[in-house]
Amino acid sequence: MENKMNKEATGLTHECGVFGAIGNEKWENNTEIAQIILIGLQALQHRGQESTGMVTSVGNNEFNIHKGMGLVKNVFTNESISQLSGIMGIGHTRYSTSAKSTAVNAQPFVVHSMHGSLAVAHNGELVNAAELRKQVLARGVGLSTHSDSELITQALCLIPPDGEVNGPDWPARIRHLMQLAPLSYSLVIMLKDRIYAVRDPYGNRPLCLGKILASTQDTVNTFTEDMINRVTEHEKEADGWVVASESCAFMKITRYIREIRPGEIVELTKNGPRTVEIILTPEGKKLAFCIFEYVYFARPTSIFEGQEVYNVRVHCGRQLALEHPVDADIVGSVPESGNAAAHGYSLESKIPQGELLAKNTYVGRTFIQPTNRLRQMNVALKFSPILTNVKGKRIILIDDSIVRGNTVGPIIKLLRKSGAKEVHIRIASPPLKYPCYMGINIPTRDELIANAKDFEDIALKVGADSLQYLSVKGLVRAVQKDISNNDRELDHCTACLTGDYPGGLPDKLDW
Amino acid sequence: MENKMNKEATGLTHECGVFGAIGNEKWENNTEIAQIILIGLQALQHRGQESTGMVTSVGNNEFNIHKGMGLVKNVFTNESISQLSGIMGIGHTRYSTSAKSTAVNAQPFVVHSMHGSLAVAHNGELVNAAELRKQVLARGVGLSTHSDSELITQALCLIPPDGEVNGPDWPARIRHLMQLAPLSYSLVIMLKDRIYAVRDPYGNRPLCLGKILASTQDTVNTFTEDMINRVTEHEKEADGWVVASESCAFMKITRYIREIRPGEIVELTKNGPRTVEIILTPEGKKLAFCIFEYVYFARPTSIFEGQEVYNVRVHCGRQLALEHPVDADIVGSVPESGNAAAHGYSLESKIPQGELLAKNTYVGRTFIQPTNRLRQMNVALKFSPILTNVKGKRIILIDDSIVRGNTVGPIIKLLRKSGAKEVHIRIASPPLKYPCYMGINIPTRDELIANAKDFEDIALKVGADSLQYLSVKGLVRAVQKDISNNDRELDHCTACLTGDYPGGLPDKLDW
Amino acid sequence: MENKMNKEATGLTHECGVFGAIGNEKWENNTEIAQIILIGLQALQHRGQESTGMVTSVGNNEFNIHKGMGLVKNVFTNESISQLSGIMGIGHTRYSTSAKSTAVNAQPFVVHSMHGSLAVAHNGELVNAAELRKQVLARGVGLSTHSDSELITQALCLIPPDGEVNGPDWPARIRHLMQLAPLSYSLVIMLKDRIYAVRDPYGNRPLCLGKILASTQDTVNTFTEDMINRVTEHEKEADGWVVASESCAFMKITRYIREIRPGEIVELTKNGPRTVEIILTPEGKKLAFCIFEYVYFARPTSIFEGQEVYNVRVHCGRQLALEHPVDADIVGSVPESGNAAAHGYSLESKIPQGELLAKNTYVGRTFIQPTNRLRQMNVALKFSPILTNVKGKRIILIDDSIVRGNTVGPIIKLLRKSGAKEVHIRIASPPLKYPCYMGINIPTRDELIANAKDFEDIALKVGADSLQYLSVKGLVRAVQKDISNNDRELDHCTACLTGDYPGGLPDKLDW
Amino acid sequence: MENKMNKEATGLTHECGVFGAIGNEKWENNTEIAQIILIGLQALQHRGQESTGMVTSVGNNEFNIHKGMGLVKNVFTNESISQLSGIMGIGHTRYSTSAKSTAVNAQPFVVHSMHGSLAVAHNGELVNAAELRKQVLARGVGLSTHSDSELITQALCLIPPDGEVNGPDWPARIRHLMQLAPLSYSLVIMLKDRIYAVRDPYGNRPLCLGKILASTQDTVNTFTEDMINRVTEHEKEADGWVVASESCAFMKITRYIREIRPGEIVELTKNGPRTVEIILTPEGKKLAFCIFEYVYFARPTSIFEGQEVYNVRVHCGRQLALEHPVDADIVGSVPESGNAAAHGYSLESKIPQGELLAKNTYVGRTFIQPTNRLRQMNVALKFSPILTNVKGKRIILIDDSIVRGNTVGPIIKLLRKSGAKEVHIRIASPPLKYPCYMGINIPTRDELIANAKDFEDIALKVGADSLQYLSVKGLVRAVQKDISNNDRELDHCTACLTGDYPGGLPDKLDW
Repeated sequence: MENKMNKEATGLTHECGVFGAIGNEKWENNTEIAQIILIGLQALQHRGQESTGMVTSVGNNEFNIHKGMGLVKNVFTNESISQLSGIMGIGHTRYSTSAKSTAVNAQPFVVHSMHGSLAVAHNGELVNAAELRKQVLARGVGLSTHSDSELITQALCLIPPDGEVNGPDWPARIRHLMQLAPLSYSLVIMLKDRIYAVRDPYGNRPLCLGKILASTQDTVNTFTEDMINRVTEHEKEADGWVVASESCAFMKITRYIREIRPGEIVELTKNGPRTVEIILTPEGKKLAFCIFEYVYFARPTSIFEGQEVYNVRVHCGRQLALEHPVDADIVGSVPESGNAAAHGYSLESKIPQGELLAKNTYVGRTFIQPTNRLRQMNVALKFSPILTNVKGKRIILIDDSIVRGNTVGPIIKLLRKSGAKEVHIRIASPPLKYPCYMGINIPTRDELIANAKDFEDIALKVGADSLQYLSVKGLVRAVQKDISNNDRELDHCTACLTGDYPGGLPDKLDW
Repeated sequence: MENKMNKEATGLTHECGVFGAIGNEKWENNTEIAQIILIGLQALQHRGQESTGMVTSVGNNEFNIHKGMGLVKNVFTNESISQLSGIMGIGHTRYSTSAKSTAVNAQPFVVHSMHGSLAVAHNGELVNAAELRKQVLARGVGLSTHSDSELITQALCLIPPDGEVNGPDWPARIRHLMQLAPLSYSLVIMLKDRIYAVRDPYGNRPLCLGKILASTQDTVNTFTEDMINRVTEHEKEADGWVVASESCAFMKITRYIREIRPGEIVELTKNGPRTVEIILTPEGKKLAFCIFEYVYFARPTSIFEGQEVYNVRVHCGRQLALEHPVDADIVGSVPESGNAAAHGYSLESKIPQGELLAKNTYVGRTFIQPTNRLRQMNVALKFSPILTNVKGKRIILIDDSIVRGNTVGPIIKLLRKSGAKEVHIRIASPPLKYPCYMGINIPTRDELIANAKDFEDIALKVGADSLQYLSVKGLVRAVQKDISNNDRELDHCTACLTGDYPGGLPDKLDW
Repeated sequence: MENKMNKEATGLTHECGVFGAIGNEKWENNTEIAQIILIGLQALQHRGQESTGMVTSVGNNEFNIHKGMGLVKNVFTNESISQLSGIMGIGHTRYSTSAKSTAVNAQPFVVHSMHGSLAVAHNGELVNAAELRKQVLARGVGLSTHSDSELITQALCLIPPDGEVNGPDWPARIRHLMQLAPLSYSLVIMLKDRIYAVRDPYGNRPLCLGKILASTQDTVNTFTEDMINRVTEHEKEADGWVVASESCAFMKITRYIREIRPGEIVELTKNGPRTVEIILTPEGKKLAFCIFEYVYFARPTSIFEGQEVYNVRVHCGRQLALEHPVDADIVGSVPESGNAAAHGYSLESKIPQGELLAKNTYVGRTFIQPTNRLRQMNVALKFSPILTNVKGKRIILIDDSIVRGNTVGPIIKLLRKSGAKEVHIRIASPPLKYPCYMGINIPTRDELIANAKDFEDIALKVGADSLQYLSVKGLVRAVQKDISNNDRELDHCTACLTGDYPGGLPDKLDW
Repeated sequence: MENKMNKEATGLTHECGVFGAIGNEKWENNTEIAQIILIGLQALQHRGQESTGMVTSVGNNEFNIHKGMGLVKNVFTNESISQLSGIMGIGHTRYSTSAKSTAVNAQPFVVHSMHGSLAVAHNGELVNAAELRKQVLARGVGLSTHSDSELITQALCLIPPDGEVNGPDWPARIRHLMQLAPLSYSLVIMLKDRIYAVRDPYGNRPLCLGKILASTQDTVNTFTEDMINRVTEHEKEADGWVVASESCAFMKITRYIREIRPGEIVELTKNGPRTVEIILTPEGKKLAFCIFEYVYFARPTSIFEGQEVYNVRVHCGRQLALEHPVDADIVGSVPESGNAAAHGYSLESKIPQGELLAKNTYVGRTFIQPTNRLRQMNVALKFSPILTNVKGKRIILIDDSIVRGNTVGPIIKLLRKSGAKEVHIRIASPPLKYPCYMGINIPTRDELIANAKDFEDIALKVGADSLQYLSVKGLVRAVQKDISNNDRELDHCTACLTGDYPGGLPDKLDW
């Protein structure tokens, strides 16, 4: 059971973060672009910690490449950055799904094609990967990995059977790819002198556009009104442009402009961004931005659909207080995942919010040759209780989801043993019930149900007085509460909660 | 100015953390003791991050030693732990002060004496070190370091001129040392079969006693009533005993019993702890426990003088709200140092507490060959503003002290640029005005005054609407509010705030 | 000049070493194959020190892969070996030529093709690479590197225009490749259940076949009569089979059987090796085994064309003594490259052989911030003179070639200053005059001529009394002296010495 | 048996190499001295590979220190060298004997004494260490290690009971030490402004003096006539002076002058070297320079007593040929330890010398989880036979001693299996029969005899046709053959061969 929970905890992983940057016509060929990408990749590290890579171009087909296993800060040394000069570049952080976890799968994937060099960074998962793979192999191409990214790359290189794309018309090749595989991906594609930012027609994975501030501008992040709307005059003053999976990757000298729209192909050159085309979802299909990005994946400061993720999570906490109120002395959270929802719960319920646990920053070493005595010590050394807020108190403990289910059990036990009078668990999202086939790694439905069951059993067994989840309806309400003016009918992918897959299941996709 | 502030920030360092552990008569000779010490040292890592070491004894004079530069988790590998078997041991974490920062200065310091092996771990600073050093050298002893710890060790080995200590009577030698140098130190001294825990007569540095739970007992930390009082029946069930600079080092299978008293010499053997003697402060002198341990140094969950440090900090925040109220929308803190005080301020003022900043966990790489553009990026990438709680809000920003003064400036600027309507700084302690000669590294009074001035200038220049400190009186009140039943007249060392040195100044100590 | 010589010294690099191993039908799936390959790659380390890799198969299309930059011993850790279980596998050691030196170019190259997984390890250089590359790109394939190995791999996957190979007939695909590109390569190609060992029709690069001794056999290397001839009964007792660039890679439990013939395709399965076909050189073309493998590249214990390389080098030394005799006291060599030739020279001339220089094993650190004084120290700390054999002696100093020309200068100077009466340089091969396009990296003819000139100038300037080379005719005689019974007309590639390229020059290949 | 031999092989270790350097009055304070010492320590690496250290002085009592476990090239990074500026310094390479192998035992040992800082580097072993230790402890000094070096250091600091040395007269303190402990050591002692080079009265351990060439001089090593005699005019042109355990440590810009004499105290200041005093051996005792330095320990290019070690070894080989002739085709050696003796044997016997084995430079990895098959592979992959010189040949195989006895067995076996007709083993020194108490680590006599017996058994069992040793008389003759003009009666320590200990046995030293 321990193992299963651990598996779940590590299994619910993103597939990736992508980042791209291009300078304007005055940009010099040095490592500034690489360093802007470096910061961006660090800010997207939470979306993939297994491998990372960067590719830059000085304007010709000789790309500079550096990739490796591990965290961004370890893969990119001063020496490797010094090799990555350029006037544009793209980068990637990665979790593996099916493909084995080796350096060869690190992205971006780079090939030399008939029409020049091509680098691709990809977030998402092709629902129809198996079929697309068969088509590519049948054309006499050898594939060196199992990653969807290489598949996409070679698909872009192919001469299509019907000859509709046989030249260097890259937008046509991208459009062709979107027909072959409509779900799910956000792509950053680099050619020698341009970058394409592409979001799938369902808008399942996030992608947003920003700019590099003109060097004359003040560079502290300004989160003013215009920040969460499209502001075209921004572009007039830019020294360059950036794209990223999340707006949290825009820091200091880069600034958020807007989201890439579902199905949009944006071409970035030294002259700025230009919408090439917007491909609509297949007839009868709705938009399907992943609701779990709001709940769990994204950084709290990221902006999706015009709203800050933190604010959505506060709404979730407020909604949770309305759905499942309880009389108590203090509202606390599992650090740090439940902080925003706990804030919302506290505001709505008027019960004060307070820290329950101090993080033991440096403690964490596991034992060699543990005796029974030491084995006991080896669990949950992560936190120490803050007696002032725990002893004799009736506590509401908030977390964002049950993904980290193996953490909550020991925490409840710790609070109980430390003198908490009552411990009420409130989860600011519904339980996960269905696997995702669009970029999140959760193996089977049975496992998910078992996990949720385990979670509840443990919580109650170790002394929780009550345990309640936010409803699906409540979550959707919290997410959509502040969205207005949307140009297409608003909808979100809730497949992992409801089993309602926007593009159908992988084996019989009905688009 | 930048440099000066940085110096201050890194300069205000502890001198050390100490830890000791000894098993009872049934204890087997394996690495359990080493691993208990390992956890303890990790929990004391905040008291010294420069070097660390551990010494264990199997009961004879052949001690096992491992020391090294760097963090506990890096110095102690599985291999080195496997060499540290024993039935007792002591450990140390260290910051340097005057002595050069090399491995040779890492503690514990071990020597072979006429009466067997001796290991010493030391927290504090000898106010009369220069004089003691001269005495030891004059006796024909070579000293291999400049550390006070070696000095103490060789002083314990010496045959005193008057012959009062010439045999293996270690308590007499310790008593003699306490007469030669009464301030300041907490010492853990290991001989082949016993450990002495010693606190200086002023009680300037902390030291506390705990036990190793009998392996039959439940091992989750229980913060019950008895935890913060001396509970003698604890000792009946113990499998061993531990001493540590702070009670936060007692985790899971170790448990807090009580403080070592000022001037107390406690002898720990396999039969348990025994108070050998309590040396009083010199005539006319008061107790002088460092008040800055409460304000800044100690972990929030540590217990001094019968109270949790977190609770004292909440009191400081409440007192601050009483002394310097202001109308506002939200109370926030500089993470994580101001959290407890912000909680107190919020409770007293009824203004809701909320997060203002999200920590950018993975971002932190500095730039190679920075251009002007990149230099701008290189500052304060540590946090991103949480727009939901900042934009349009009147903010009270709390920090525990001005020690981290170089952090507050950029944060105020960031909040302002992110749309904060007002930013009021409240510091939950008075400004530092005088250097410390008892184990905290702050060079000169001029620098301290300059730092405080700089801090205020910057805060206001970058847009703080007001800036107020807690008064010395208010701090003392917050610290002493919940202390009762003290067996000696209560007093604390406030020398760094008031210039009132408990033992006089180093050059003319008047004891 | 220094630089140019350095360039030459590092420029004359092999392109690679290849190794393959397959177990018989009783072989179990564990890491034995990987460890046999590991030893083989270490023994081939001299053929490529930039990167290395290994791919194993358990009998299906899921290959295990590990590749990395650096030496074999660093790339393959216990952990990576433990991931490389299998019943067959291939490995590679690599120097770069044109392709940039990054991990992505490390071999073996692996792809998934329409007819299963495919791994390719390659030694050599495609004389017509540019043209073949164009053909592959035009077919809509993206190439991820500039290496000839990937080019070969994708060429094997292609559906040929004329449809002559459109199925899983791999020998037909290999034959097709040999027609597209006849020069130069030795290839080891792995499919899920078999390995192909292929040598180009000219036999330019070496490749040989061996067996894994049956576990019942005595395993000390036995260099008996049968060892240098094909011995078919070997195969009856084998537990598996191996192929390698050089026979020095067969150690202890692996044993040399015979060379792969020029143009031969050998298929190795669990049932043993089988010659599929032998492709002859194009009409009017002769065999062209690289004569520099004998002179410089190969390990002295390797066997080519039925003779030990060491013996050929002794012949060269004898021939050199006949061509350029001189009266002297001692014959010495540049360690270790000239040892065999010096032995030959000594035997022929009856002048005793002796060590002139002791290697300073541990000395070699370069200086930081060198002063003028230290700069002087930084040169040629590699050897110390052995006074006993140098002082007052007339010395004949032998080296195998002028490739390490920058070493000889300082050595002559050192001998002179140490009291040598005379120093006569004898080089056991002719000077390099022409670039190689078949796998050895020497840029231009002008550079080669300049290098030879520099070499002579320096040698004489620093005090050599004479300097003589072995003649081309003499070298060919030494190489061919002991070869008999050859089934085709004997010939060797001497292009780098004579400019007579066996397949013509790259820009207008006339096959 | 295998284990015992391995133990012997690793057990016969030196105790150390020492090095010192001091600049003249014009020397600037930078890292040149450190880098000269660095090269020196690398050249002395064969004398101690366990730990190393360096201490430099800028002319005052604040020494710069860097020490660590491991090889010189790993312990000294650019960063650590940059911390070691100075105008003089000393260094050390170390093997452990009794003291545990930890960083704390690394030398030089540094203390602050009543009369300034003191650094000591030591090669040798105090025969009466136990007694001296008791005396030091009884004086109230704590000793932090078990190393003789710290003992010597604290003994130098002591105020002697009789008051004969109570001031800063360091030569008097050194003289006092030499009376307390006459055997065996070579010492390099640094004070803030001078270095003392001291050799024990028996001259048991080597130590020699050299100079730093004036920066105007030509710096290639010149091994001319004057090199092996004392040449006073050297000193006039020097920019500084150096001392080292062996003259092989003088390279390029440093040059050999002469040996430090047995019992000599040389003081080196910025004004040059000065003999303070020469202490004679106790009445009735002879000089006792270790004969095994010639046989085994020293580098072949080092100079002792006016002769090159290589030349002595050639003499040993000649003597061996006279004592134990045999008819054969080729004389070979165990690389590289037997090279010089084989050269001598060849010259005397007129049988040609030739290489028998090629070193497999890169092969050496041991196996994880070895199967039976792989275990067979794991032995003796170090060399491959050179068939040309082995097959069908009658071989004389020479080694310097039986210290590496576990190497010879597999080599004989390998030669036999590779077709050698006869293999005759000739050892150029007598068998070791007695333990050494003067700095070489061989535990007991029984073990030594067992080892020699094992060695012979194995050699004959695996196929040696004969096995003969050089006689003690022959060895002494070879060593003393070329020595003349010695100012004291010539004698050498042959205790390990004869049991004749120059200073008696440790437990009852009779000086």
